Amino acid sequence: MFDIEPYLVRKSALINRELEKHLPAANARPAILHRAIRYSVLAGGKRLRPILCLAAAEAAGGAEKNARMPALAIEILHTYTLIHDDLPCMDNDELRRGKPTSHVVFGEANAVLAGDALLTLAFEWLAAAAPLPPYKTGDLIRELAHAAGSRGVIGGQVEDLASEGKKPNAAAVKFIHLHKTAALIRAAVRIGAICGGAGKSELSALGSYGEKAGLAFQIADDILNETSSPASMGKAAGSDRARGKMTYVAVLGLKGAKQAAGRLAREAVRSLAPLKGNIGPLKAIVEYIVAREK
Amino acid sequence: MFDIEPYLVRKSALINRELEKHLPAANARPAILHRAIRYSVLAGGKRLRPILCLAAAEAAGGAEKNARMPALAIEILHTYTLIHDDLPCMDNDELRRGKPTSHVVFGEANAVLAGDALLTLAFEWLAAAAPLPPYKTGDLIRELAHAAGSRGVIGGQVEDLASEGKKPNAAAVKFIHLHKTAALIRAAVRIGAICGGAGKSELSALGSYGEKAGLAFQIADDILNETSSPASMGKAAGSDRARGKMTYVAVLGLKGAKQAAGRLAREAVRSLAPLKGNIGPLKAIVEYIVAREK
Repeated sequence: MFDIEPYLVRKSALINRELEKHLPAANARPAILHRAIRYSVLAGGKRLRPILCLAAAEAAGGAEKNARMPALAIEILHTYTLIHDDLPCMDNDELRRGKPTSHVVFGEANAVLAGDALLTLAFEWLAAAAPLPPYKTGDLIRELAHAAGSRGVIGGQVEDLASEGKKPNAAAVKFIHLHKTAALIRAAVRIGAICGGAGKSELSALGSYGEKAGLAFQIADDILNETSSPASMGKAAGSDRARGKMTYVAVLGLKGAKQAAGRLAREAVRSLAPLKGNIGPLKAIVEYIVAREK
Repeated sequence: MFDIEPYLVRKSALINRELEKHLPAANARPAILHRAIRYSVLAGGKRLRPILCLAAAEAAGGAEKNARMPALAIEILHTYTLIHDDLPCMDNDELRRGKPTSHVVFGEANAVLAGDALLTLAFEWLAAAAPLPPYKTGDLIRELAHAAGSRGVIGGQVEDLASEGKKPNAAAVKFIHLHKTAALIRAAVRIGAICGGAGKSELSALGSYGEKAGLAFQIADDILNETSSPASMGKAAGSDRARGKMTYVAVLGLKGAKQAAGRLAREAVRSLAPLKGNIGPLKAIVEYIVAREK
């Protein structure tokens, strides 16, 4: 039986160390921008996406090390989405991971620009990877750009904002969660797989795992937003409902959402069947995702 | 004698056609996001950066066609910087190229997200290029990411905002203009050169041309902001001075700024001496830049 908690602790510590090492120094000019960048990236977080990226490389039979820069790239791209989502013109959140959000600390303009800089740096870091043949750098860039772009994460965010206060419906929730959350998690897994030298069918299997795990993660998040205390979330609980957000809980109820998350996690695990590498971590991660309490 | 005006008309028409062709359709979901993207990108503009990219490929002895996707990528990256610069939390501009700015038409959140999407798409398009050996896709991504990132364009914008209303000084103006404007123009030229198969010394010569042309362009822009009518600018004239912006005109006066622009243009032309390809367009473009009236 794979022991997930020490694995996650070990891997997130590795990610934190590497982020600390690769980010521009806090005193690089302009200092306020680089302080803002480091503030948000180093604020903690589960590091789920980079860990999935590393685990996917291993599941594909490759070395985790080959996926390290891409893993960091995906995490800072994720951080940029959080900074922009929290802006006054979007979710207007003042707290994230228990700390004041970027625009509260550094001002709105610097928060927008810190997000822009992290998005840009993500592609620079991704280009530093050396994917195994027949894959090329361009394959990695396309995976990330497509997942993060107007028909991925950003498209999901636009629909999320547009749907606030509207009557919840299953199709709209699925579009939002597939694009806003699952697309990047799927890309994290696929990029790891590419760096691990996955064959075509393995890449496809891991993509399917990533999408299902990503949806399961978002449903679990919706449930936690409804049921957790602010202290364990590091942000206001029940905020989705207060805002009329389109969530799985709003559409399926708490019980239905829990069942959906469990079903997706099982499907994600089944997707891993064709893999020849070590699938222990990926299996344990998706089970952890639906069982977690914060 | 190279005839610059019909050349610019022809090339900008080419860029416009290609942008129109490659951008996501206006009805792609979410439609408001894709309408916002197309609105800003297709609003016109001189298309200076992509034209420089094409001309650099030719100056390096390569085929202009090899630089086409990178040229488009650079133009949409430039468009993203304009959308974000115009936001209420930055320059708060309501008019750009004679049309209401993105946030005025589509709302602030969608303007932020349209900018984010264009930045992301720029890397996707750049990864579609096939640079000539020994250069690789990663070289192109690094050039653009570095120029556009926290130690390039974004760093320049942060210092620009921070310097508003402060006493003008030459070192601060140079930092802002080198980073906010010249870095991307230099990258446009270098990326074109890489796609045209430039050797090491040619690449360096073209990078020097790009930086000087970029500074000359920004000084010319500062001069026009001070002296032009709103009708010819498509935005409010004298707005830099009204805002206490750090410009070359504020530091050197109108006459000094004109002299500096002319000197930089001559230095840019001299940088082209080592090139073996057709340098006619690059030479004419930088001369046009300092002579232009809008």
